[in-house]
Amino acid sequence: MSMTYDKAHELKDALEQSEEFKALHELHAQIEADEIAKKMLENFRKLQLDLQQKQMQGIQISEEEAQQAQQQFELVQQHELISKLMEAEQQLSVIITELNKIITEPLEKIYGDPSQEQ
Amino acid sequence: MSMTYDKAHELKDALEQSEEFKALHELHAQIEADEIAKKMLENFRKLQLDLQQKQMQGIQISEEEAQQAQQQFELVQQHELISKLMEAEQQLSVIITELNKIITEPLEKIYGDPSQEQ
Repeated sequence: MSMTYDKAHELKDALEQSEEFKALHELHAQIEADEIAKKMLENFRKLQLDLQQKQMQGIQISEEEAQQAQQQFELVQQHELISKLMEAEQQLSVIITELNKIITEPLEKIYGDPSQEQ
Repeated sequence: MSMTYDKAHELKDALEQSEEFKALHELHAQIEADEIAKKMLENFRKLQLDLQQKQMQGIQISEEEAQQAQQQFELVQQHELISKLMEAEQQLSVIITELNKIITEPLEKIYGDPSQEQ
């Protein structure tokens, strides 16, 4: 199993050295250094988190809340740095999903592909 | 990024060749070949899934249902093959959680460790 952990560390290093990760890291640092952008993003994340927690608790989101979230999203998208950060996050999220899919392929051989079920 | 995907494939191969994965694969094949064990496990998995889906929908699990699940669990644990399979699954689940933790370390540098929050 130590071979497996060695390979995981190699993968981590490769991810860390990738252009996609470096771009995200750099954008995040730029936003941290920009008071207004930082505050805007924090407020938006807080709103998102509140709505997610409600959904997880089975609480219905009101139309007003959904509209407010959409407006906030459109607002933060206007900010170039934040918009770029969100795009970079989305890219990395796709990559990490793909990496997970590759790594768990052996389990699919046993249990089948869960994305093909139902 | 192709380096990252290459490393993910190497990790997948290492995982597939690990003793822990091979043990799980072998136990699963043995259960597939054993009508009674297979049926017992299927029934238990179905019960588990039903309860999980209820929980995800925010439906309260009754005391009777919880007891039934616990009894079923104790019953399947009596079956040596199933008990070994569950142990092997648990082992692999721990390993995969650890691998994910290693791989996403670079993200912790940006966002902090989510397990340390709150």
